[in-house]
Amino acid sequence: MKALYYNNYLELIDVPEPALDKGEALIKILYAGICNTDLEILKGYMGFKGIPGHEFVGEVVKAPANEALVGKRVVGEINIACGRCDMCLAGKRKHCRNIRTLGINNYNGVFAEYAKLPIENLHLIPDEIPDTAATLVEPLAAAFQVLEQAHIKPTDSVCVIGDGKLGLLISIVLEYKGIRHILIGKHPERAKEIIPEVQTHLPFELKGLENSFDVVIEATGNAKGFTSAIEFTKPMGTLVLKSTFAAGESLNLSPVVVKELNITGSRCGPFEPAIKFLTEHHERLNKMISGIFPLNEYQKAFDTAKGSLKVLLRVG
Amino acid sequence: MKALYYNNYLELIDVPEPALDKGEALIKILYAGICNTDLEILKGYMGFKGIPGHEFVGEVVKAPANEALVGKRVVGEINIACGRCDMCLAGKRKHCRNIRTLGINNYNGVFAEYAKLPIENLHLIPDEIPDTAATLVEPLAAAFQVLEQAHIKPTDSVCVIGDGKLGLLISIVLEYKGIRHILIGKHPERAKEIIPEVQTHLPFELKGLENSFDVVIEATGNAKGFTSAIEFTKPMGTLVLKSTFAAGESLNLSPVVVKELNITGSRCGPFEPAIKFLTEHHERLNKMISGIFPLNEYQKAFDTAKGSLKVLLRVG
Repeated sequence: MKALYYNNYLELIDVPEPALDKGEALIKILYAGICNTDLEILKGYMGFKGIPGHEFVGEVVKAPANEALVGKRVVGEINIACGRCDMCLAGKRKHCRNIRTLGINNYNGVFAEYAKLPIENLHLIPDEIPDTAATLVEPLAAAFQVLEQAHIKPTDSVCVIGDGKLGLLISIVLEYKGIRHILIGKHPERAKEIIPEVQTHLPFELKGLENSFDVVIEATGNAKGFTSAIEFTKPMGTLVLKSTFAAGESLNLSPVVVKELNITGSRCGPFEPAIKFLTEHHERLNKMISGIFPLNEYQKAFDTAKGSLKVLLRVG
Repeated sequence: MKALYYNNYLELIDVPEPALDKGEALIKILYAGICNTDLEILKGYMGFKGIPGHEFVGEVVKAPANEALVGKRVVGEINIACGRCDMCLAGKRKHCRNIRTLGINNYNGVFAEYAKLPIENLHLIPDEIPDTAATLVEPLAAAFQVLEQAHIKPTDSVCVIGDGKLGLLISIVLEYKGIRHILIGKHPERAKEIIPEVQTHLPFELKGLENSFDVVIEATGNAKGFTSAIEFTKPMGTLVLKSTFAAGESLNLSPVVVKELNITGSRCGPFEPAIKFLTEHHERLNKMISGIFPLNEYQKAFDTAKGSLKVLLRVG
C-alpha cells in the first residue's frame, strides 16, 4: 500500500499493509486530517519514525474479533492502552503506563491507504455525517474535553484565548452548550464566518480586562498566550490549558500562587458527544476545512496546513 | 514608638504610633516572625516602603469598636479587604480588588512596638499557646490552606517537595490529619528531628519515582522544585503550588497538558484550625524556632533568618 513515511524526512513509499494483532481491525482510510502535532512530528517531535497521522475517517475491511464491523464507516481514538496497568485499571486508559499513540508514539498512523487500530478504539459514524466533517471528530473531541474537566457555571464569565483550529472548535462547543464567552485571537473576521454568534476580540482590544474571567481556556500554542491567560483569569478562577508550547519558555508562575488559580491541563477527549454534535451541525465544521489534497500532493497539503485551518488528505 | 522602617534600606527609627481608622485595633507587638517574603521585600519585592513584618503575636491596647478585646492576646490575618468589591461580596476577601496586606502592600506591618489591624482580622490566642508558637499561626494557616484546596483521598499517594519552613509546616499538618506522605528535601536530618514520623528523602534518592504521586505539594521556592513536582505527579494528579519563585524562569509546561495535571496555586490560609492545632501541639512548632533576637538586633536576626528555620524578633 502507499503511505507517507517519516524517518528524518517525509516521503510517499510502498509499504506492506499493517499486520493485525489480537483485537485489532484493518481500516481503509478515506480522509485524514493534518494536525499541528503532525507538523511538529515532521520537525522531530516525539522522535517518531513511521507513518504519521491520527485524524481520519475510514471503512473497516477486516475485524476478526467482530466481523459485524466490516464495511462500516468509523473514526478512532488515538491512544492504544495496555488495559492491564494501574492507570488502565483506574479507568484512565489514555494515561496508560505503556501507552502507544496512533501516528505519534510507537504505532503507525493514518497517512496511508490502510491503518489498524484496536476495535475498542473505533466509533461508528452515522450516515448524516459526511466524510470530511467526520475527519474532525478527534480534534472536536479534544474541544469537548474542556467540559469534561472544568465545571463552567451559568454565572461564570468565560473566554477562549486563541482562534486557531483548536480555539475555534472549543468556541463552537461552548456555543453549542449555551456557554456565553468571548473569543480572543488574531483572526476575528475568520472566526466571525464560522461562529457569528460569538463575540470576538483582537488581543490588543483587551486592556483593562485583567482578572476578569472565571474561566479562561488557553489554546494559542505559545507562551505569550499562556501569560495573557494567567492575567485574564480572576483570583481563584480556572485556567484550562489546551495547548502545548515549546519547552524552556520564560514564564512567571507567581500569579498562579498569589491569585490561587486552578490550572487544568487538557488533552484528548470523548468521541461520543463530538459525533452527536456532528450529526446536527456538520456544516459549521465543514467551513473550517480550508483545503483537500490527494495523498500524492502531500507536500502541498502540509505547506497549506501551516498557514490555514484544517487541511485534509483524500486517501481512499 | 520604635519601628523597623524600609525605604530602600532598613533602619530602626522612631515613628508615630499608628492612627486608627474605623474598626481598627491597636496592638502592642510581643513577638514577630521573619518570613521569606520579608527577605524578598528587603530586596525590593512589591516596591514596599514602610514597616515590614506580618507574622506576630500581640496584645490589644485599643479597640474602640470592641472594648472587650483590650488586654487580649491576638494574632491577625494579613489581608485587609475593602468588604465592598465583587470579590469581597463573593466571599473571597483575601482576593479583594482593593487589597492591602500587612507589612507587604500599602499597610504598615509588625516589626514595631505597635501595629494596627481591622478588628475582623484578629483571632484570640488561648492561654495554652506560648507567645513564640503563636507567632507561627500565620505560616501554619498557609500550610492548612493546602487541605482547603486539594481533596486528598485516603488512597492517594502524597509527597511534599521542599523541607524549608513551609514544607515542614505542610508536612506537620498532613501528619496531624493522618495523611501519609513522603517529604523530599535537602535537610532530612533536620526534618527528622521535627517530624520523626514522616519518611524523608533526599532529592537524588528519587530516581524512578516519576508519575508516582496522586498529590504533590511544591514548597521549594525554586523552578527546579516545580519541574520535579511536575515529573513526580501522576497523570491526572494534583500539584499544589505553594511557593513563588523568580519571574522569567525557563519552564516546560507541556507535561501539564499531556498528563492532564491539575495545578492549584495556594497562598494564605484559615487561622482557626492552625490555632486549634497549636493548643495541642505547640512543642513541635517551637522546635522550628532557630533564633530569637531583640528588635535592636534586627540585622543579626535577618542574617540568621537567611540560612535557618524560623527566626523571631522579641519586641514587647
